[in-house]
Amino acid sequence: MEVQNKFVALKNRIEGAPLESDLEIKETSLKRSPNEAQIIVKNLYVSIDPYQLNRMKSLCSSHSTTKNASQVKLGQVVAAHGVGRVVASGDERFKKGDLVVGHLGWEEYSVINTSTADGFLRKIGSSEFPPSYYLGILGISGLTAYTGFFNVCKPKKGDFVFVSAACGSVGNIVGQYAKLFGCYVVGCAGSNHKVDHLKDELRFDDAFNYKEETDLESSLKRYFPQGIDIYFDNVGGELLEAAVVNMNMFGRIVVCGVISEYTNKRRSAPNMLDVIYKRISIQGFLLVDYMHLFEEFMSFTCEQLRNNKIQAIEDISKGLESIPSAFVGLFNGSNVGKKLVQLE
Amino acid sequence: MEVQNKFVALKNRIEGAPLESDLEIKETSLKRSPNEAQIIVKNLYVSIDPYQLNRMKSLCSSHSTTKNASQVKLGQVVAAHGVGRVVASGDERFKKGDLVVGHLGWEEYSVINTSTADGFLRKIGSSEFPPSYYLGILGISGLTAYTGFFNVCKPKKGDFVFVSAACGSVGNIVGQYAKLFGCYVVGCAGSNHKVDHLKDELRFDDAFNYKEETDLESSLKRYFPQGIDIYFDNVGGELLEAAVVNMNMFGRIVVCGVISEYTNKRRSAPNMLDVIYKRISIQGFLLVDYMHLFEEFMSFTCEQLRNNKIQAIEDISKGLESIPSAFVGLFNGSNVGKKLVQLE
Repeated sequence: MEVQNKFVALKNRIEGAPLESDLEIKETSLKRSPNEAQIIVKNLYVSIDPYQLNRMKSLCSSHSTTKNASQVKLGQVVAAHGVGRVVASGDERFKKGDLVVGHLGWEEYSVINTSTADGFLRKIGSSEFPPSYYLGILGISGLTAYTGFFNVCKPKKGDFVFVSAACGSVGNIVGQYAKLFGCYVVGCAGSNHKVDHLKDELRFDDAFNYKEETDLESSLKRYFPQGIDIYFDNVGGELLEAAVVNMNMFGRIVVCGVISEYTNKRRSAPNMLDVIYKRISIQGFLLVDYMHLFEEFMSFTCEQLRNNKIQAIEDISKGLESIPSAFVGLFNGSNVGKKLVQLE
Repeated sequence: MEVQNKFVALKNRIEGAPLESDLEIKETSLKRSPNEAQIIVKNLYVSIDPYQLNRMKSLCSSHSTTKNASQVKLGQVVAAHGVGRVVASGDERFKKGDLVVGHLGWEEYSVINTSTADGFLRKIGSSEFPPSYYLGILGISGLTAYTGFFNVCKPKKGDFVFVSAACGSVGNIVGQYAKLFGCYVVGCAGSNHKVDHLKDELRFDDAFNYKEETDLESSLKRYFPQGIDIYFDNVGGELLEAAVVNMNMFGRIVVCGVISEYTNKRRSAPNMLDVIYKRISIQGFLLVDYMHLFEEFMSFTCEQLRNNKIQAIEDISKGLESIPSAFVGLFNGSNVGKKLVQLE
């Protein structure tokens, strides 16, 4: 039995900010008869993430360093995290009807080789939470926030924590974990609506709209008169420079993403004299090194969700056709929270 | 009894590269009758170090972060590490004739308050090594190299190590420790004479003259086809950017100094995508955090010196009047090894 499978493909390499026309919707036919060690999944939600842009460039250090960030091939489906339902299975561990999360793709159906699938592939089982949560707060975004904050930032209670792109998929969760842990948390975001959300809904101690600030160094001095102990960086560029100036002694900067530098050649030039004299550490961070903490993360985060101590912030568009605009929107700061596209 | 005391003072704040005319020789009279808890020292050698330039600027993060790097006052003596002989003592722990090392100054005589002196002040006692060694390989330069390399870089045998300013006071010792430890070591320096010295005398695996390279990124790729595990940075700027591109996964960069940025506004803008995807750490480092390792360092390094496994490289000028040119020369790369001025 064959079905038509619509997917989103990369039309050409992208160097600056992405345009919708860099992507195209294509269609192919798919046999719904999996081999052994294959499952066929009908996708319900797919994740739209900034790092995917690096995979679409002609040259990026992401291509050679991790499998999940390898270069996207032209004309082929763009791989992405997703949640889907098994419609046919050649692997006895998965049954028709099972809900799974893993590396799927921006497509209606995905064929997964279960023998070569990475640690992200798993069954959701019956869950008290909506399936979409397994892409955000209970998925890669949550695990990135959890391990990046607790394991890389190594926070102490009372630390002053600054989070950039604080309304983004990872940033909002980092801020929530930091508040739960007893830190003082300030976030920055790109609209007043987001700033209100951070302060009113997510109970950040403070937040500001970086687009309304003329001098980020002074802004941070105003929000952190006692200095910053931890900067969770999702942005890079000018904001990283301003943070370095405002870091405290032995301050820790975890570089999780540098979205401003994905589309822009203006790189951050932090003052290295500050780095030396304040013994600042700047640590690059990727989730793949922390997969072993998945169970710990899930158990902690589910508990917080159950007790309404943490919230899932989702921004969901509908239909495969909305993927290109959803992706382009990430770099304009359109999304509030985890950006997903619902396919069914 | 009074003596005349010549000293080097800062005439005006320095913003770019220093000129000899930024410093002046002054003279004052000094009573050779110390109070209790004071010693008066006739200085034999004083240390000429790049970090002192940061202390001469109008604004630098060094001023507020550590006592030893606080701002130099105009018209007053420039503090500096030195070795001297006690000529009068009000503290029973020090006797006339004792050789001491500590924070003295660019001056003929220094008055030291022993009750408020920092951990650097100590008697040398009878030593098998020349007194000047206690400012270089057995002093702050050696301890910086030792703790920066062993404790901050955390080397593994076989690591590929790059050292910049490798003929400088700290760099040459870092390279020698790294060779002793079993690393592959390449250094860069600013003249062919220095490069020969690194390869022929100090047994670096390789070395190059950065002034003869047109593209530092490719140069490092040539010297490290298998990538860099540890970069001990004394230079900053363009070289730090080139190193980041050539770092291996989980590479460690220890920022000990950024001499190119002391005199130049061109700051380093390392590619943060490399930092993320290769999980690079960039760690600022100051010696003051590692003073507790002094005994361990001394015992190890004396042993290596005795067995000719490590060499002291000194560059000694004579007379207080030569201090301004010696200091200016640091930023032109004139010195080969530890720069000292011998006063007597």
